[in-house]
Amino acid sequence: MLLREGRSLPAVCFVWQIAMIILFGIFIRYNEESDAHWIEHKTSNNISSNIENDFYFRYPSFQDVHVMIFVGFGFLMTFLKRYSFGAVGFNFLIAGFGLQWALLMQGWFHSLDPMDGKIKIGVESMINADFCVASCLIAYGAVLGKVSPVQLMVMTLFGVTLYAVEEYIILSLIHARDAGGSMVIHTFGAYYGLSISWMLYRPNLDQSKHRIGSVYHSDVFAMIGTLFLWMFWPSFNSAISDHGDGQHRAAINTYLSLAATVLTSIAISSLSQKTGKLDMVHIQNATLAGGVAVGTAAEFMLMPYGSLIVGFCCGIISTLGYIYITPFMEKYLKIHDTCGIHNLHAMPGVIGGIVGAITAAAASKGVYGTEGLANTFDFMGKWKDMMPTQQGGHQAAGLCVALCFGIGGGIIVGCILRLPIWGDAPDNSCFDDDIYWETVKPCWSYFSEGDFLVFQ
Amino acid sequence: MLLREGRSLPAVCFVWQIAMIILFGIFIRYNEESDAHWIEHKTSNNISSNIENDFYFRYPSFQDVHVMIFVGFGFLMTFLKRYSFGAVGFNFLIAGFGLQWALLMQGWFHSLDPMDGKIKIGVESMINADFCVASCLIAYGAVLGKVSPVQLMVMTLFGVTLYAVEEYIILSLIHARDAGGSMVIHTFGAYYGLSISWMLYRPNLDQSKHRIGSVYHSDVFAMIGTLFLWMFWPSFNSAISDHGDGQHRAAINTYLSLAATVLTSIAISSLSQKTGKLDMVHIQNATLAGGVAVGTAAEFMLMPYGSLIVGFCCGIISTLGYIYITPFMEKYLKIHDTCGIHNLHAMPGVIGGIVGAITAAAASKGVYGTEGLANTFDFMGKWKDMMPTQQGGHQAAGLCVALCFGIGGGIIVGCILRLPIWGDAPDNSCFDDDIYWETVKPCWSYFSEGDFLVFQ
Amino acid sequence: MLLREGRSLPAVCFVWQIAMIILFGIFIRYNEESDAHWIEHKTSNNISSNIENDFYFRYPSFQDVHVMIFVGFGFLMTFLKRYSFGAVGFNFLIAGFGLQWALLMQGWFHSLDPMDGKIKIGVESMINADFCVASCLIAYGAVLGKVSPVQLMVMTLFGVTLYAVEEYIILSLIHARDAGGSMVIHTFGAYYGLSISWMLYRPNLDQSKHRIGSVYHSDVFAMIGTLFLWMFWPSFNSAISDHGDGQHRAAINTYLSLAATVLTSIAISSLSQKTGKLDMVHIQNATLAGGVAVGTAAEFMLMPYGSLIVGFCCGIISTLGYIYITPFMEKYLKIHDTCGIHNLHAMPGVIGGIVGAITAAAASKGVYGTEGLANTFDFMGKWKDMMPTQQGGHQAAGLCVALCFGIGGGIIVGCILRLPIWGDAPDNSCFDDDIYWETVKPCWSYFSEGDFLVFQ
Repeated sequence: MLLREGRSLPAVCFVWQIAMIILFGIFIRYNEESDAHWIEHKTSNNISSNIENDFYFRYPSFQDVHVMIFVGFGFLMTFLKRYSFGAVGFNFLIAGFGLQWALLMQGWFHSLDPMDGKIKIGVESMINADFCVASCLIAYGAVLGKVSPVQLMVMTLFGVTLYAVEEYIILSLIHARDAGGSMVIHTFGAYYGLSISWMLYRPNLDQSKHRIGSVYHSDVFAMIGTLFLWMFWPSFNSAISDHGDGQHRAAINTYLSLAATVLTSIAISSLSQKTGKLDMVHIQNATLAGGVAVGTAAEFMLMPYGSLIVGFCCGIISTLGYIYITPFMEKYLKIHDTCGIHNLHAMPGVIGGIVGAITAAAASKGVYGTEGLANTFDFMGKWKDMMPTQQGGHQAAGLCVALCFGIGGGIIVGCILRLPIWGDAPDNSCFDDDIYWETVKPCWSYFSEGDFLVFQ
Repeated sequence: MLLREGRSLPAVCFVWQIAMIILFGIFIRYNEESDAHWIEHKTSNNISSNIENDFYFRYPSFQDVHVMIFVGFGFLMTFLKRYSFGAVGFNFLIAGFGLQWALLMQGWFHSLDPMDGKIKIGVESMINADFCVASCLIAYGAVLGKVSPVQLMVMTLFGVTLYAVEEYIILSLIHARDAGGSMVIHTFGAYYGLSISWMLYRPNLDQSKHRIGSVYHSDVFAMIGTLFLWMFWPSFNSAISDHGDGQHRAAINTYLSLAATVLTSIAISSLSQKTGKLDMVHIQNATLAGGVAVGTAAEFMLMPYGSLIVGFCCGIISTLGYIYITPFMEKYLKIHDTCGIHNLHAMPGVIGGIVGAITAAAASKGVYGTEGLANTFDFMGKWKDMMPTQQGGHQAAGLCVALCFGIGGGIIVGCILRLPIWGDAPDNSCFDDDIYWETVKPCWSYFSEGDFLVFQ
Repeated sequence: MLLREGRSLPAVCFVWQIAMIILFGIFIRYNEESDAHWIEHKTSNNISSNIENDFYFRYPSFQDVHVMIFVGFGFLMTFLKRYSFGAVGFNFLIAGFGLQWALLMQGWFHSLDPMDGKIKIGVESMINADFCVASCLIAYGAVLGKVSPVQLMVMTLFGVTLYAVEEYIILSLIHARDAGGSMVIHTFGAYYGLSISWMLYRPNLDQSKHRIGSVYHSDVFAMIGTLFLWMFWPSFNSAISDHGDGQHRAAINTYLSLAATVLTSIAISSLSQKTGKLDMVHIQNATLAGGVAVGTAAEFMLMPYGSLIVGFCCGIISTLGYIYITPFMEKYLKIHDTCGIHNLHAMPGVIGGIVGAITAAAASKGVYGTEGLANTFDFMGKWKDMMPTQQGGHQAAGLCVALCFGIGGGIIVGCILRLPIWGDAPDNSCFDDDIYWETVKPCWSYFSEGDFLVFQ
């Protein structure tokens, strides 16, 4: 059968890419800030200078987000001793496809010009497409090493679609705010991935167990991913928030939250071992939880100490998750989570949604100023009479929608991915680049007979 | 003889650096935006705010380009199992020298102040110097592992000189547009390097053949280079394009083109193997071809789908190049191309020139607006009556100039580099850091006797 | 005892982080550009656009500085064959703590709002906190592999405190200028670290000597650190200099100085070996000296050739330092300097201070313009009658203060760190990740019996 004989990946890549070209031809055009008519638009809108083009407000943040998507997520997953190519390579593939599909899906919901039926794109569209892709890469973390690239493409196709719908419901219909995507990106993406991993549970995965784990250098490679995610997270959370104080505040809050997370992650990691030694898995992952959890509230007046508290708690919870919850989920819930996304994205994402709801509900004109309140929460147009307490409720509703879409969507897509047509690896060849890549054996593989090297 | 005894490199470095200091002392000054008189300039030109300083329009892009030059090109070439030091170290050396010489050469042609005979530099000069260096680093890719650092310095000295002349002819005399340098940087640089490699052909290179190839970790290192090039290419193509919509559009077009390239590169890579497995060489290199090919037209109204089409085609052509053309060139044309720059830069560069010519010729006031057309193609001053179709012809002429300079210059410089005074490695010591670096043997080298590890 | 049993690190992390939260709660608030009242502030100050928010002047530079702190310093120190986890991990820990403490300490001295007794933070505060942390990471370089994480935390606590005081004295009381921190950051940080290393001298360190040194891949990892430091140094030196020409000029000067350093470092490295081979240690470190040495004068009218001269000299001095001074200091002065920070930060820092003093003293209205002179040197308020020659004297005084604080502070903190309660590694377990990290043995370790692999 075609799909089994290794020809399905090229077929999917070609057909879907051609479909993208056709759909882009029909639907996608430049928006007024990236179109050559900008000079006329400027004159007619009394814009005094080119520097007012949204490009200059957002492009540096876009580039940081872009680094997070490709180097951050890609290298974070290189920690497995024999799956670094798959980590960084398939991350590259699904992000490359996902961002095109996201421009279309998000465009249909958010940027369709009623005048001509076209989607108008600009720098903010690129950021949003990268955001959307992030949710699929998070999901990839749960199934890393266990699925074929074709399955990943299918997962991304449906993931982006579901994302665009839930994003539209949460941001536009429910009018929740979610600048850094704690709910929309992280909660959705993580539960989507976990549900798929649950559906694809392999009872005999222990045949590949000796390949789950890192070697010295692969852990250092993974730290490249960790650090680029950590450093650029302030850009992630501020990339699409309001010009001026919104972006400024989102960056500060995220910077602080992440700093606090580092200390508590390290503390719990050391406490968890009798010897007091640190575990690289925690340093690589749990240190990022503060960025996830501050996502929704980053642009609110969370206050610097509020950000520290969020980071403090998430470092603890996320590290404890790696120690207790991941093994529990694998053993009792039949959910194998390769990268521990439940600890890094799911729990912190939910916390982020709750923090956002509370912060919104507690907002007041005293703290924000009248105009500031309206601006920050976008109490304009048909929402102009909204109260902060109501907004808190809407935030909570948004979190529920993200959860439902993640779990429900993941179960459905997981069922599709269980069909025996996708060419996934047998149970004894998971976490192994040799299945999908031309490789030279790494030197350490000569030492791992009997696994005396692998298990400490 | 001095040059042979390992003292030529320090001599070249010292003498050339002193020459740079003297020439900078005579010629180079700050321009009005980086000079302390800026505050007066601002007042006399009615500039309302410091944010209008060109620094804020271009500095983020400059830094991205800078990363591409040093980390992007440097790490992309670390894939060889025993030449990572040379890849990243000599890249560092020639870029460090080249950018100084480029500031002078480009300055003489483009930024000489007729009032005082000085070159005035600013952020755009730094970007242009980095661009110029890029062409020499591309050329380095063809001869990687086969030349001495002194030869690289000579190659860079002449390369920068040739670049400045061809750039002046193409951009100023012929009035072609080339924001992302498909012609000026990539076509020129690639053919320059290939011609040099042709002149320096080593019939007995198979004595070093066991060192051509990667190991597991060196391929992951190379992916760092790939990804930073890929991610920051939108900045590369938009760095010196027009403020406002020009930069905005160039970034979007490049972003899209590169995304499409990823899918088709992976598709062809998989198709090329009976097993359907992927080859890291293609992922590392061919995925970048879309950025090269969209360089010239990036600031034009290429349209989003146009960018996708360009990327689609280049991913295919570039990957096929690695599979068929590189071996062909080595066997029949006596051109050994270590990094495959013919597939990554030469062919996509020429395609980029052609795409630029077609897009320019097809431009119309309907699509660009009257002012937009004049702005985008710089139909001002003595070119104010130019028609788009004419511009298309000028673009094509520019491509020819780049080709001629690349091939002609490469042959001449190649002849110079054949002189037996440069201390290059013997045929059995190519691709080996031990010749130029104090090294500790990497562990995998203990396994490669008889090359059973190296060849799959 | 608690501290010895591996529970001191979690205790320190928790207690100090809780202290941070409390202090932030009491003292730290958003400044007017990151507060939701920005919209009202804008109106009342006639600020025409959100783009005038300081965020857009400084955020791209901030992100570059952030990368230098975490990836730059972190990976630069991964060169040791068995201490890469400690290098990048403890760097992460102390930077995460240090930046919080720095926001408080610097805030008390520089940004305390007299109206409400609160510290108001914004993007410039984050940059300054990162700067402050840099001085502690420099100090870490001297003691890398020889101290426990708790000692590092103590060192950072005192280091940040001392930094904030000396910075206040140098910048505010003495009115010296130091945009890139040659004195405030590098001179102080390096002598602080060297003095601590002197106090902690281990006579029997040769028991761990076989672990001092690199392997092939660890040198390539270290180059990641080197290059990100090198590339983003222009952002470092320009991050907090004046809007407009100040930032622009600082970036240009640093760019040029670093380029010159590359050539002379490589020249001296090659000259120092009979074989003419290059040493990776020099390429990784000495190439950065030009960025340090141009720090103070970067925003002055140093002139492009002046920057090249500074870089030229520092490349030579720094490389010679690695060859002659580091071994001398270890043998005769009992100062073991793991990363050679004396060559990379101390000497170039002092040179930078001197260059700054000379450049300031030589400033004239002819070169700067009347307004430019006042702006560049901040001759305003009570300093409005200051002469450039006087300023030169103040710069020199600033350098002395940095030296005194570094050496004096380091001796005192070193004494504290000698207390036998900190759980540092025994002499035969230095430079070894196994003490503090759960590790899998790297494959090359199987070859190092008898150290035949390690010593060349």
